[in-house]
Amino acid sequence: MSLTIIKGTILSAPAFGKLEVTENGFLIAENGKITGVFPVLPEAYAGAPVEDFGDALVLQTMADLHLHAPQYPMLGTGMDRPLLEWLDTYAFPTEARFSDPGYAREIYSRLAGELIAGGTTRVCMFSSLHREGTLILMEELEKAGVTGYVGKVNMDRNGGKNLQETTEESISETLRWLEECQDFRQIRPILTPRFIPSCTNGLMEFLGRLAKERELPAQSHLSENTGEIQLVASLHPDCRQYWECYAKYGLWNDRTIMAHCVWSDERERQAMAEAGVTAVHCADSNQNICSGVAPVRVMMQEGVKVALGSDIAGGDRLNMFDVAAASIRASKARRILDNLQTDFLTVLEAWYLATSSGAAYFGEKPGFAPGNSLHAMVLADDSLPQPHPLTPQERLERAIYLRQPSAIRALWSDGVRRF
Amino acid sequence: MSLTIIKGTILSAPAFGKLEVTENGFLIAENGKITGVFPVLPEAYAGAPVEDFGDALVLQTMADLHLHAPQYPMLGTGMDRPLLEWLDTYAFPTEARFSDPGYAREIYSRLAGELIAGGTTRVCMFSSLHREGTLILMEELEKAGVTGYVGKVNMDRNGGKNLQETTEESISETLRWLEECQDFRQIRPILTPRFIPSCTNGLMEFLGRLAKERELPAQSHLSENTGEIQLVASLHPDCRQYWECYAKYGLWNDRTIMAHCVWSDERERQAMAEAGVTAVHCADSNQNICSGVAPVRVMMQEGVKVALGSDIAGGDRLNMFDVAAASIRASKARRILDNLQTDFLTVLEAWYLATSSGAAYFGEKPGFAPGNSLHAMVLADDSLPQPHPLTPQERLERAIYLRQPSAIRALWSDGVRRF
Repeated sequence: MSLTIIKGTILSAPAFGKLEVTENGFLIAENGKITGVFPVLPEAYAGAPVEDFGDALVLQTMADLHLHAPQYPMLGTGMDRPLLEWLDTYAFPTEARFSDPGYAREIYSRLAGELIAGGTTRVCMFSSLHREGTLILMEELEKAGVTGYVGKVNMDRNGGKNLQETTEESISETLRWLEECQDFRQIRPILTPRFIPSCTNGLMEFLGRLAKERELPAQSHLSENTGEIQLVASLHPDCRQYWECYAKYGLWNDRTIMAHCVWSDERERQAMAEAGVTAVHCADSNQNICSGVAPVRVMMQEGVKVALGSDIAGGDRLNMFDVAAASIRASKARRILDNLQTDFLTVLEAWYLATSSGAAYFGEKPGFAPGNSLHAMVLADDSLPQPHPLTPQERLERAIYLRQPSAIRALWSDGVRRF
Repeated sequence: MSLTIIKGTILSAPAFGKLEVTENGFLIAENGKITGVFPVLPEAYAGAPVEDFGDALVLQTMADLHLHAPQYPMLGTGMDRPLLEWLDTYAFPTEARFSDPGYAREIYSRLAGELIAGGTTRVCMFSSLHREGTLILMEELEKAGVTGYVGKVNMDRNGGKNLQETTEESISETLRWLEECQDFRQIRPILTPRFIPSCTNGLMEFLGRLAKERELPAQSHLSENTGEIQLVASLHPDCRQYWECYAKYGLWNDRTIMAHCVWSDERERQAMAEAGVTAVHCADSNQNICSGVAPVRVMMQEGVKVALGSDIAGGDRLNMFDVAAASIRASKARRILDNLQTDFLTVLEAWYLATSSGAAYFGEKPGFAPGNSLHAMVLADDSLPQPHPLTPQERLERAIYLRQPSAIRALWSDGVRRF
């Protein structure tokens, strides 16, 4: 039996907007599963080795539920372009480079390292349409200690130059990819039709069948911008709303991840809540390419599951502390321009979305709940000046807002210490 | 005679939205003043030592025209609070600590170092109301190589606990401060009534007289939020608009800096354009405390001078690359929630505001114009992955959006190399 006892100021997010603080507490895990958080060391563990991090914060790690791995090299470029021009000039040519396994290896090992160093241990990620590149991505993530889902993208129409498959290729490569990725433990496959405009009905039918037969989850994009919604309506005149295009192929259930949902109205949100679909809020990307601001607090109130995504490289920041801050800012922009009618996301609400809410997709209970897999990080912020002795909550707030390079001193992912 | 010849990919912002690129170019300065940018080394300099930075970018440094130095230790905290509660709980108690010279020395030396390391060489800065602390701030800035203006704050009403002066104290301390700061070269004094609600009419009259007698510039806040505007109207019923409260005391001219101007309407903007007042756009702060989004592009079109400010600690980021990106994002939020009616700030427009537009307040011509004082930095971005060979403009865009710790390899401020 392996035992981990971490001592520090332990913070966890047990509910939307709530913070549980245990100063000088003990976070204990056995065989990688959390036993609990204790204000004093339980007698059963007397004499066991304790990793004492003093006054440092012990936090849940973060989950990034929507990002495009092959867009990582173009981070922070092309942000002035309108969506379609951005796709043609930046996104598609960049993704096309991942037909080269050497390039994929170089970029993906760097991406995986940056995720772990930044405190992100759970992902749902788009790869490109390349089978080999996708396997390399899965390998590099697993090697670095990132857990979660990766999808080989399916795209048999409306692609870019050198970035489109025939329906037959998409089907056969997907099947081969599923076969070849069976040995991964921490990174599992997820079906990934890019979005409705990129996939023919035949391909969607195949993916729906495959999801059912092999009990596979699925991820895609939903209601990101108004032009896209019109295009989808014209492609599927039988569907009253965008989400029904996924539903009719059997890709609309509690293992479905839908990025953006900026323009999802009450009816579409209702359909998400009922099916248990997870909506991924990508504040940076939605602001950068002027898609809009998703009504995140309304979604939460309506019972929709919401998590956060960096959505690189529409989003320009991979770090999930930044993404949490961006979500707060976006909600404040909404409030400002709404004549202060809507409430903004508080720091603790954004933190819950970045941690517990993302982890929920992987079947975890909120916070450091007993039975959860150990995903934790130690953040030492003692090099910063203080205006007054900060409370643990203020320290968390500052961690979300401020760049603190090298402040994450230790990290466990799925029970294993990674640094 | 001292001679500086810097070789690299030289980028400068000669006009709003324009970029001048000289690849493998030479930026030359004599005795700290720029001679010019040359595609080939002029014969006159043949044989002179060249500092060759290869493919690195040579950029103008940035100007931060509005920030509160004594709020630096509280960066990134209290962001969920409404303005008045934030002032009482965070800003005022933090500023009050600067009655302690030791604390001031520790915090201000750190602030000055972070400004220079981040590429900011010009500032217009609020200190606290403490004379001694203000002199320490000026010393530390000058030591680090930051140039510009610092103001001892005047505040004889509506202050915080241990953070208010009598009118007499404010006057005598201001006079003494002006006497004691005569030896500074790079950092000069600027009169700094905190804002209209903080200063009695008697104090404002004194400051107006002083500005005229000693030809001193002035900085303050203007039309940041609607509640403040109402308060000012009730304090000065004789003034039709907020700006007229400054104008009636003689603090409204081409050496005046006004932070925020979020709610300045056409008439107030007209008054700025006519008097040559510089409006400082503080996008982060305005978003964090839900003040609004200033109509920056409209101001520019109307001929108002606009520069950027980090406005720490209402703003949560000191780095001016971040502040430029925040300005772009804020303009996109405005566009999104305006039904795409207003144009967003482009990367090059934001860059102009962060560099040439800020430098204009100090009498400089745009870009690396001959006669300007040498304020330049070398940014090496070769450690980042590339999606394709990036153009100099794309590299600048990435520098604005992405964290590149340690990428600034060399910096000159007012002709002197600082690292």
